[in-house]
Order: sequence, then structure tokens, then C-alpha cells
Amino acid sequence: MQQQDNNQTKMVGKQSILFLKPPCILSAASIAGKKEGEGPLGSLFDMIEEDPLAGKKTWEEAESELMKRAAQKALEKSGLASMDIRYLIGGDLLGQLIATSFGIGELEIPMLGIYGACSTMGEAITIGSILVEGGFADRVMAITSSHFAGAEKQFRFPLDYGNQRPYSASWTVTGSGAVIIGDQSLTPKDNQAQIVIKGVTIGKIVDYGLKDSMNMGAAMAPAAFETIKQNFEDLGVEPSYYDKIITGDLGYVGKNILIDLLKEKNYDISGNHMDCGIEIFDKDNQDTHAGGSGCGCSAITLAGYILKQLREGTWKRVLFIPTGALLSQVSFNEGNSVPGIAHAVILERS
Amino acid sequence: MQQQDNNQTKMVGKQSILFLKPPCILSAASIAGKKEGEGPLGSLFDMIEEDPLAGKKTWEEAESELMKRAAQKALEKSGLASMDIRYLIGGDLLGQLIATSFGIGELEIPMLGIYGACSTMGEAITIGSILVEGGFADRVMAITSSHFAGAEKQFRFPLDYGNQRPYSASWTVTGSGAVIIGDQSLTPKDNQAQIVIKGVTIGKIVDYGLKDSMNMGAAMAPAAFETIKQNFEDLGVEPSYYDKIITGDLGYVGKNILIDLLKEKNYDISGNHMDCGIEIFDKDNQDTHAGGSGCGCSAITLAGYILKQLREGTWKRVLFIPTGALLSQVSFNEGNSVPGIAHAVILERS
Repeated sequence: MQQQDNNQTKMVGKQSILFLKPPCILSAASIAGKKEGEGPLGSLFDMIEEDPLAGKKTWEEAESELMKRAAQKALEKSGLASMDIRYLIGGDLLGQLIATSFGIGELEIPMLGIYGACSTMGEAITIGSILVEGGFADRVMAITSSHFAGAEKQFRFPLDYGNQRPYSASWTVTGSGAVIIGDQSLTPKDNQAQIVIKGVTIGKIVDYGLKDSMNMGAAMAPAAFETIKQNFEDLGVEPSYYDKIITGDLGYVGKNILIDLLKEKNYDISGNHMDCGIEIFDKDNQDTHAGGSGCGCSAITLAGYILKQLREGTWKRVLFIPTGALLSQVSFNEGNSVPGIAHAVILERS
Repeated sequence: MQQQDNNQTKMVGKQSILFLKPPCILSAASIAGKKEGEGPLGSLFDMIEEDPLAGKKTWEEAESELMKRAAQKALEKSGLASMDIRYLIGGDLLGQLIATSFGIGELEIPMLGIYGACSTMGEAITIGSILVEGGFADRVMAITSSHFAGAEKQFRFPLDYGNQRPYSASWTVTGSGAVIIGDQSLTPKDNQAQIVIKGVTIGKIVDYGLKDSMNMGAAMAPAAFETIKQNFEDLGVEPSYYDKIITGDLGYVGKNILIDLLKEKNYDISGNHMDCGIEIFDKDNQDTHAGGSGCGCSAITLAGYILKQLREGTWKRVLFIPTGALLSQVSFNEGNSVPGIAHAVILERS
């Protein structure tokens, strides 16, 4: 890997940042829906909510409730109170981020709302790490959520229509994941191995002209490709630098496209690539077609599974790349393409 | 004002940041619609687009086009190319930020998408300044937009319905404003007085339970109040510390509420308060009721008017507080309240 130069700049290559004092993940929490709880990762989530409405009256309120519980659980696991979190960075898939606005308001933490479709957890951790490492905050929370029924209503059809889904369609994950990031000196309470955020690569909007909202994996794969390639170039590393290269929700269709695009540039990630959308559901028994998706997909896979593997030392260094499809009901109805974006976060066991 | 302590922390009080090396505004650009061009600030905008569709087929594409032109103008005025901008921080009012996603994609600048309703320009400058001051980027662009027809379609009714608007309703500004922020060493090309971003106060979600989407000034005033009060407390200053305290789009209704709320806390801002939504239209002759609103409102007032007053020395120090109403069509239809949020930026002539 390239060394940072004498000026100790954090700016590396064209799009990447390497932190001089990598911030640390103080705690993480996840809440998942019933279907996610029945999937291969089910036992790893902190909480499973069996009721799709989470005791509320609407899908949107249900999603807000999941987000609130994930935030509270992350606080509880870290032994912190909401007043200990200086800023919260959060977002969701719904228009005008209403799951977030109504979910975390009562925590009374100053908030930066963000939107990157399903890449939002990557963006939240990026901004959160920057706030901590730059000395702008001691502790921050990065949080995202998604809800199957809310997302179908938002982007496609209300569930009651019973419309059929093509095999290229993904299944929006119901769940919320939260991560508390702090200065390395703020050691986790339980003295487990520290996981630090070593750096990030902030992605560009990438538009290959695809127009199918039922094939988001294909729409997002080029964005994942560009960000991963740029990360390798900026840092001067090969795929083997990472134990795992983990995309957010490309699913089965997008995974193959990503691997092929990188192969054309002589990067072979076929041996160490993983996709949260593929891991979260059982393809054969859960009828989720291309795999899971949504801001919550990569967030709960990170909080429940990826961080656990790092803590236990199964993996030492991971490139985590949540991927987003930048469409809306309006842009789709007006015949626009579906641009993608992906932000990469380098996680390392210290 | 309180001095920063010996540890040179940037964290001040509960929610504020004071930069040790305040970043500088390298250039700013604005594009406005026909109505805004006919308003009191019309002559100050860089460009006026007379065609509400800006030569495009849909309101959303028109807004994207305005954003692209504002970005290009800001680059042109600074003598920079898009590759000189390390990161772009941008957002708009539309669901899933589609004006932004389709507006600035072709600039190929790595992007962080954000959503804070009409407070978005405050959030964009906040994150942009943090990136620059923390050494994560040399130059960034903060950009937002809004479009009257797109916003009416998104939040209320399509224009063709010809629905009547109550006097408490605001008029969404058609326009886009962009600001390029850089390290102070990157002196503006024309050697004008430097304007620096001295600090920021990141706001909380504030919900007083108001439910009227046609009275957003009243919904946002409490958020502006909380952020301004916190800024005073965190910095240990009185309202007179600022030559102007400029809110985003409270309009006539919200302005009075804000002044009253602050008076109850013994802060009198009646002498130096200004609201972009009030300044941008001529109340008597433009039939805009409570005033202008939208992400574009504070953005073009900043780029066209506020920065000019600072450059010319009319004002030396300004607190700029774009204000956002966190509602969506869905949250409104489901009978939810309209929470508000406001982020404050301290601008100073060096």
C-alpha cells in the first residue's frame, strides 16, 4: 500500500481518505423483521420484530419505530445515553426521509439527514468518521433503515395489488442498523478487539443508462465497480489487501456484473467478494429472487454479521461498499434511467 | 465570546463547532426563475431562466438543469474545473433527491447526497466546511435547488388543479445556488475580501405538533429558535454579536414566531433579523403570500445577496440559518405533524 506522504495528508488519490487517527466503532445494534429473522443471519441480529407494523398504524411509522429501537439498542450496548452522542447521521429510502425524521426526533440528538438510497449506511459512516477524526465530535451515531412494505409502496406498487416480481427484482429488507463511532481513546466497554474505520472512498454518480427499477443490481453494479476500482487505485492495493470485499445489495445479478467489470481491469475479486443482499436471505427457501436490498440490508448485515466476524478475527480487514440506486417513483414514471452510487468504508481489526 | 480552550478543541458547547482554520468561500453562483428575477433581488443573481421548464420536458428535469448551470457558473467564476472539486455535497426537496441525482451526475464529482428540506444549504455548507477544515478535501462544492412547480406537484397539488393558497402558504423558489469552499490559502482569484466560515451549529429535529403543510413558517420557527438559541449559548454571545441573523424561509408568519420565542429567553433579534423568504419576493406586488421557500430560496439569497453584502463590508459577521420543514406527501396524508430542523452557519468577512 502507498504510504501517506510527509505532509500527513488524509487525502489519498482522487476520491479516498485515510484517517491519521482511525476512529473506532464503539457499538452497533440491529433490528430485523420476521423474514430477515428466519434467514441465514437471523440469530445474529439483536432484535427481531415479528409484527410488520411494529405495533404502529402505517408502514412508515413502523420503520420509524425500528429505527428508534436500533438507536436505543446501540446506546444501551455502549452504556451511553443519547446526550453522549454529539451528532447523528441518518437516512432511509422514503421520500423526504420521513422514517428518519419521525424515528429519531425524540432522541434529541443534533442530526444531519442524508440520502444515498441503499448506499446510505456507507455515507453515514463516512460523514460520522470524518466528524470524529477531524475533532468535530467525540461520538456520533450512523443509522439507516428500510421496510419492505414501505419501500414497495414508495417505489413500485402497494402490496395489496399482489403484483408479480421478476427474478431480477430484489426484496427490500425490513430492519434498521445503528453504529456508534468514537475516538479510539474511548475504548469499548467490554474490551473486545477494537474495530477501526481506517478510511473511505466517496463515490460518484454512475449512470450506464439502465431503466429497469426491477433490476437494481444491474443498475448499481457499475457504481460499485467504479468505487472499488478507485479504492484500489487510490490506495495502490490489490483485491487481496482485503479479507472480504462486501457490497451492499447487488444481489445475484449485480454480483456477476461487478466481478466481470473488475476482471476487465485485471482485478479479480471473485474469491473474496460477498454481498449483503445475498447473505441475508436463503435464495432457495425464501423466494426473495435477486436478494435483499434497502438501506437496512447492509446496515443490519454490518451490525449483526460483519462486525462480529471482525471482532472474532475471522477477517482482519474488510472493504464495505453499500450500493444505492438513485431512482424515485417520479423519475421512473418519467422514463429516466436509474443512476447508481456507492461509498466504500475500510474496516480493520486493530 | 468564549475563548476556545487550551486543547484547541473545535467542539464548542453542546451543538456547535468553531473552526481553528476557518475555510473560505472561493466562489458562489446563483440561477433564478422568472418570478425571482422580477423580485427585489433580481439584479443580483448571476443568471435568470425565463422558461419554467428550462428547455426540458418535466419540472424535475428543469430543476436538474438549473442545478447543473449553477454548478458550472460557480466553477467558471472561480476559474476551476470540475476535477478541481474533490467532493460535492448537495440536495433538493424532491423524493430521493432526483433533481440532484440527475443534475450533477455529469460533473463526475464524488458526491454526498443530503436532505434537510429547506435547511439543506446550511447542512451542505456545514459538511463541506468540515471536509475542508479537517484536511479531508482541498475544495468542495455545496449546492441545492428547488422548483416551484416541482415542489407543488411533490408536496401539494399539480399546478393544473389551480387550487387556492392560504395567506400562510409560502411560494417555493425556482432556482439553484452553489458555493465552492476551500482552504484559506486558496485565495479567491479576484482578490476580493475573503469570506470565511467561522463555525456552525448543527440543529435537532424540533416538533411542536403543527400539522398544516400550508403554514410551514410556523412549523419551522421552533427549529430556528432552538438552533439560534443554542448558537448564542454555545458561543456565549448576544444577538448583537452578529450584524445580521438570517433565517432561510420562515416568511412573515414564522418570523414573528421566532422573534417572540427568542424574546421569552431574553434574546432580542428584532433589530438584526432578516429572512431570505421575505427578501426574495415583493409581498405587495408578487402575490407570494407568506414569502419564498425551498432549498433554492436561502441558497440563491446567500449566493446573490448575502455574500455580496459581506464582500462589500456592509456586514462583517452573519449567522445564516436555513430552515427546513420535514414533511412528505405521505407523512402529511397520514396525518403526521411537520417537524422542523435548522442548521446555522457563521459567515465572517476576514
